[in-house]
Amino acid sequence: MSGVPHGQPIAEASYSAAELDPDDATVWILDQRRLPQEETYAPVRDVATMVDAIKEMWVRGAPAIGIAGAYGIVLAAREAARFEDFLGLAERLATARPTAVNLRWAVARMVRCAGGGRGGSQVDLVREMAREARLIHAEDVAANRRLSHLGAALLPERAVVLTHCNAGALATGGYGTALGVVRAAREQGKQIRVVADETRPWLQGARLTAWELSRDGFDVTVIADGVGASLMRRGQIDCVVVGADRVARSGDVANKIGTYHVACAARHHQVPFYVAAPFSTVDLDTPTGDAIVIEERPASEVAHCGSVVTVPAGVRVHNPSFDVTPAALVTALFTERGVVQPLSESGIARLAEVAGVETSH
Amino acid sequence: MSGVPHGQPIAEASYSAAELDPDDATVWILDQRRLPQEETYAPVRDVATMVDAIKEMWVRGAPAIGIAGAYGIVLAAREAARFEDFLGLAERLATARPTAVNLRWAVARMVRCAGGGRGGSQVDLVREMAREARLIHAEDVAANRRLSHLGAALLPERAVVLTHCNAGALATGGYGTALGVVRAAREQGKQIRVVADETRPWLQGARLTAWELSRDGFDVTVIADGVGASLMRRGQIDCVVVGADRVARSGDVANKIGTYHVACAARHHQVPFYVAAPFSTVDLDTPTGDAIVIEERPASEVAHCGSVVTVPAGVRVHNPSFDVTPAALVTALFTERGVVQPLSESGIARLAEVAGVETSH
Repeated sequence: MSGVPHGQPIAEASYSAAELDPDDATVWILDQRRLPQEETYAPVRDVATMVDAIKEMWVRGAPAIGIAGAYGIVLAAREAARFEDFLGLAERLATARPTAVNLRWAVARMVRCAGGGRGGSQVDLVREMAREARLIHAEDVAANRRLSHLGAALLPERAVVLTHCNAGALATGGYGTALGVVRAAREQGKQIRVVADETRPWLQGARLTAWELSRDGFDVTVIADGVGASLMRRGQIDCVVVGADRVARSGDVANKIGTYHVACAARHHQVPFYVAAPFSTVDLDTPTGDAIVIEERPASEVAHCGSVVTVPAGVRVHNPSFDVTPAALVTALFTERGVVQPLSESGIARLAEVAGVETSH
Repeated sequence: MSGVPHGQPIAEASYSAAELDPDDATVWILDQRRLPQEETYAPVRDVATMVDAIKEMWVRGAPAIGIAGAYGIVLAAREAARFEDFLGLAERLATARPTAVNLRWAVARMVRCAGGGRGGSQVDLVREMAREARLIHAEDVAANRRLSHLGAALLPERAVVLTHCNAGALATGGYGTALGVVRAAREQGKQIRVVADETRPWLQGARLTAWELSRDGFDVTVIADGVGASLMRRGQIDCVVVGADRVARSGDVANKIGTYHVACAARHHQVPFYVAAPFSTVDLDTPTGDAIVIEERPASEVAHCGSVVTVPAGVRVHNPSFDVTPAALVTALFTERGVVQPLSESGIARLAEVAGVETSH
């Protein structure tokens, strides 16, 4: 099967991480645990299942889990008998995973939109929530396109781009952030090749980035996570582009574990290190990276490959899901509000004041 | 089953990567592909099987494949009808894998010891080769102990050591190089904890380092390869200790892919980065790291986890097995002839002149 089962996807692609069915009662979640072997859409019809889908990473990627959370609020509006119940379900959705700020941001926006539950029937609330969630989704795609085109302008005409994890269409409403930059560069007529870190332990690079880029006709090569530095040493990487799960007010960037390792190597080789993220990823309430909660995922993600045990029984595993790259190691941040270069608290503050689409430099 | 099936292992441990049976006709190879699930010793009785065992990594680790190559020469002496055939088999063994210099070094020493085949019966040759191969093995263990104790003296009383790949008893004749340093530090009364990179794609860290350290009662934690840099940033790593597959005359170090990634992170955080290797790993005929042939391993090592496909069909994989860390990033080299600090061509040259066991500083 290819493509979401029903309706016209907002993702504007032949696949989509999450779409609300025209019935406003079913969310189709592309089960990313099964990629690249199978493209399977799971119907999600209640909040508990959506919380599982987010926790268990059927859907992942900061913007995509924001959108899934927003669609989950539509289900919450159907499910809740009273407005207090609705708020309780919203809290469960908002806290399904701790690090990416987009999830909290999207749920908070949905709850604000619900307006305290004053007036209107449950049917009205569901309709209003569905409208707002689809708007969040569509705005994410539009933001991705804009930030990607702003960022792509900084890439050379021919470039080999190293990316880590998957910040693509699969991680967002569609188009992507880091991979959006790759798409936009191609739309700008540039010759782009991508080197994808496989990204242990969950293999988002090998399984997801390689899948979506090869499906869309890009030249992509997968490497183990330890290979990038030696490619940089041989001058074979022109820049690094990654996404973000949260950007602190200081400009510190939380992203998939291993990102900071790549950033250290990029700095050592003077390779530009770009972060691409919608402004919804910027959390002005988080002063610096030190304040970002880093999710510890189960040891089994590292200790097994499929059914094969890779770590001896009884040996401890440390499996943080994210790391923090300090702003000083980031060459520029691409957002739909503009490019921040160099990345600093004052640069972020300027963007925060931008209502529209001006660039900050 | 635990331990080699017959005889008293030279490895002085309850397990050994390679041992020659008292019959001088069977080499017991611990099949490291099956660890940590099974400790299985495969009997190897002909050169073709030994070449497979080295190529397919039943045995791996630069010193251990040198020893396996030496034991393979014993089998070659049995197998070859004429001395020319013996030399042909020796060449097949020497070239089974290209990067580690110990394999060529051990085979060349065995062939020199065979003395051009003049005089003596085949039985004499087999006996002489068995004696020399066991000597190479025993010397490796002794060298490991000495270099490890020299290196361990540089570690603080309490230290968290990050290591990459497996440079342990399993990678050597016994005791180990990088993990030998950990063992020696414990013997010196130091409190050592080890953090082991899982080491994609072959997972030597997760499967082998964790197995041998936990078996020997060490505190070991496994992490994915991208985690180390963020531990360094939080001050949780006191030093890095790794082995080497080849050290060039310049001091550049070829080691398991990902080592250079760790070295870049260590430099960024000013964490000492130590390399532990017997002097047989130093190749004075290799001027710099640029002259070291880097083996490209099959894509399937990266594209599969067990039977699970992790990279979409048709996507290119780049799977170099080693990388080169320039001497300038290495804080010190530990060898049985002494410690070289800083690591430089002149430091290596001084060691080359040392016949015995003096230290170079």
